[in-house]
Amino acid sequence: MREETDLATPLRGPEHDNDPSETPGFVEAVVGAIDAGDVAALRAIVSDLHETDVARLLEALPAADRPQLIELLGSDFDFTALTELDETVRVQILEALSTQTVVDGMRDLDSDDAVYILEDLDDADKQEILSNLSIPERAALQRSLDYPEESAGRRMQTEFIALPPYWTVGQTLDYIGETEGLPETFFEVFVVDATYRLNGSVPLDRLLRTKRGTKLGDVVTPDRHVVNATDDQEDVARVFERYNLISAPVVDEAGRLVGVLTVDDIVDVIQEEAEEDLKALGGVAGDEELSDSFWYIARSRFSWLLLNLIAANIASFVIALFENELQRMVALAVLMPIVASQGGNAATQTMTVAVRALATRELRPSNARRVIARELLVGLFNGVVFAVIMAVVVFARFGVADLGFVIALAMVINLAAAALGGILIPLTLDRLKVDPAVASGPFVTTITDVVGFFAFLGIASLWF
Amino acid sequence: MREETDLATPLRGPEHDNDPSETPGFVEAVVGAIDAGDVAALRAIVSDLHETDVARLLEALPAADRPQLIELLGSDFDFTALTELDETVRVQILEALSTQTVVDGMRDLDSDDAVYILEDLDDADKQEILSNLSIPERAALQRSLDYPEESAGRRMQTEFIALPPYWTVGQTLDYIGETEGLPETFFEVFVVDATYRLNGSVPLDRLLRTKRGTKLGDVVTPDRHVVNATDDQEDVARVFERYNLISAPVVDEAGRLVGVLTVDDIVDVIQEEAEEDLKALGGVAGDEELSDSFWYIARSRFSWLLLNLIAANIASFVIALFENELQRMVALAVLMPIVASQGGNAATQTMTVAVRALATRELRPSNARRVIARELLVGLFNGVVFAVIMAVVVFARFGVADLGFVIALAMVINLAAAALGGILIPLTLDRLKVDPAVASGPFVTTITDVVGFFAFLGIASLWF
Repeated sequence: MREETDLATPLRGPEHDNDPSETPGFVEAVVGAIDAGDVAALRAIVSDLHETDVARLLEALPAADRPQLIELLGSDFDFTALTELDETVRVQILEALSTQTVVDGMRDLDSDDAVYILEDLDDADKQEILSNLSIPERAALQRSLDYPEESAGRRMQTEFIALPPYWTVGQTLDYIGETEGLPETFFEVFVVDATYRLNGSVPLDRLLRTKRGTKLGDVVTPDRHVVNATDDQEDVARVFERYNLISAPVVDEAGRLVGVLTVDDIVDVIQEEAEEDLKALGGVAGDEELSDSFWYIARSRFSWLLLNLIAANIASFVIALFENELQRMVALAVLMPIVASQGGNAATQTMTVAVRALATRELRPSNARRVIARELLVGLFNGVVFAVIMAVVVFARFGVADLGFVIALAMVINLAAAALGGILIPLTLDRLKVDPAVASGPFVTTITDVVGFFAFLGIASLWF
Repeated sequence: MREETDLATPLRGPEHDNDPSETPGFVEAVVGAIDAGDVAALRAIVSDLHETDVARLLEALPAADRPQLIELLGSDFDFTALTELDETVRVQILEALSTQTVVDGMRDLDSDDAVYILEDLDDADKQEILSNLSIPERAALQRSLDYPEESAGRRMQTEFIALPPYWTVGQTLDYIGETEGLPETFFEVFVVDATYRLNGSVPLDRLLRTKRGTKLGDVVTPDRHVVNATDDQEDVARVFERYNLISAPVVDEAGRLVGVLTVDDIVDVIQEEAEEDLKALGGVAGDEELSDSFWYIARSRFSWLLLNLIAANIASFVIALFENELQRMVALAVLMPIVASQGGNAATQTMTVAVRALATRELRPSNARRVIARELLVGLFNGVVFAVIMAVVVFARFGVADLGFVIALAMVINLAAAALGGILIPLTLDRLKVDPAVASGPFVTTITDVVGFFAFLGIASLWF
């Protein structure tokens, strides 16, 4: 168990990244307390932890103990921790908890966290929870839930401070100082007209540096980056990242202020987006999580492997065209995978760069031609270098100079094809509005396998 | 050229992500104005643009025009734009600019941006610029530069507000309202003792909601996540992300406050970290940029391809062990790449998940055993499914039932080996403190190629 002093001294250095659930005996102690129903001990343990660490603890517990811990803690359990869980674990817990516990827990949440938890539930559960909330609470959540999945409207916080332009800075400061029930944290006040249309915002630090008599309308600046509630969260993330935003107002179709997005919500989206590309390139579903079940993972990986099996069989049919040559010269069979493999890897390099540059919008129509030309040059250059190396290796191994020449020529051809395939396929898919991260791989591998085998065996059949 | 109205109406929707440099004729118009030395026109164009879009414009210009645009704009060019450039372009521009221009430009920068620009320069250039700054400016930058590369000390802003605990909230608010030269943006005031040791911080919104007579010492909360100036930026990024931080104080070895990190600096680090993993898995150097030269890229990709060539040659030697079998039965040569390729892809799936989960610390000693077991199960399951598919395909193609059985058995063996290699190699490398994203690929491919060829040809040699 953690020492009491942990909280008194601020956590410093990379060691503050230590997860208490990794401390030997910690999880066992919690399980023991759950089994014994020792609420006081559990309360002491959890009150020390950040919500993220509570989430880690929940994930480390046996599945049956997770909802039990929450029920035992009652109002001492902060539902914010549920937003930090893997989706699989979150849904499992929510389905096991009593409706009353969920309703009570939702009440204390920021609207964005409440929506994040609600949106994974099926409609019946969602409605049951919503119907147990007060009308204003329900209306705010329902409005967010009405926006499309993965939209800014789903991620935004609906708590914010919006004031008319004729208020003075002094009035505003007094209002903030005296009003109960303001948002828990905020970085600016928004200025809106009588119909709630957004004029702009005033950051708190500017508010503090402005004379009390000044009207908000005279100190407000229009936000250059206003988010539409229907905007896709990935587009919003790119804007935050690109313009280094800390927060941005969210407006509806009529330009009325409906919420605010802060960068801490967006960091998760940025992270997810990069991770989805990485997984897609590795042939894994973007939403695969470490806590997913065996069945889910086996099924989701199957479809990618099936595509690859089809590609490999196409390559195999190409090889079969040259059965006579292979029979005559078994060295061809020994060497042909080298040509194909080198092409596959060169293509993967180019494809990785292209897919990422498309995702970050660094690869654009204006520079596409230059990048294609450069990749082709790199492919040809490395093709020639590896051609020379392999010609020497093959001559040393088989003592047949011709065979070295054939593999060299095939290597140059396949590395040039790899470069072109690696860049043109993602570019084409992107133009066809297909995610190049997900779909490029199988095409690219098929091309380099087919070209590799065909070039090597074909040249050999002409030569010998 | 952009219409004047663009600025008046806030930019809304995904279209605010549009890059003016992609507007047809825009770059040409800028080039024309540079050639004509039309400073007024350039000033009008650039004053409309966010610093990020100025950076995009610089990248879209011919290399020779880039420094010229900056020299022409003089004090109207905001050097912050340089921080948004690819490193290659930034260094090229800085080397072409006169020292005086760089010195003048640096003066207006936040300390973190100045350090970011300075750190890429060689020592002579760095010293020349530093020696032209005022002593306090120089001292602040030098202090940051003395911290290791990629440390929190390099990324932090050295401008912040630090006050003693006996100050009242009213005093603090008046101080902020009346003092010139405070940081441009800030979200909190820090509370320090007489030796500048950090007590904690008070966010602005809390300051505004506290009675003027209250002492800072009574309203301050200790920061739970204090960053050491020497901490690696990736560790810091993980903490920001994990605990949803907006900003965090940075302290030196003695616990004295030396700077502040805000999440907008950290977003770039998070992005870079995910991108480095993605590139490493694709066999590309983490720092490869779209604007890098042909030479740089050809060289940096070469080493990875060389490793792959060695792996492919090892696999080829395994094939050579079975020359007699291949000669006797050419179908083996036609089919063997299918077994190897299917193993390679299954291993890549597992490796991708493992590498990412290690990077985000989701894969930990406490759950490693469960994940290994699950991956092995998935490998065996998909192995059996694909074994059955291939047995049928091979029987249909070659009419030899035995051959179908041999490829089926080899498939199961290789997919199990792929699963184990895909998870155990990253785990082992991580334990040996080698970055699994960079180093796993070649090992994993070698294993699946060698096991695939050896299992298929070996079983065939025993059977037939």
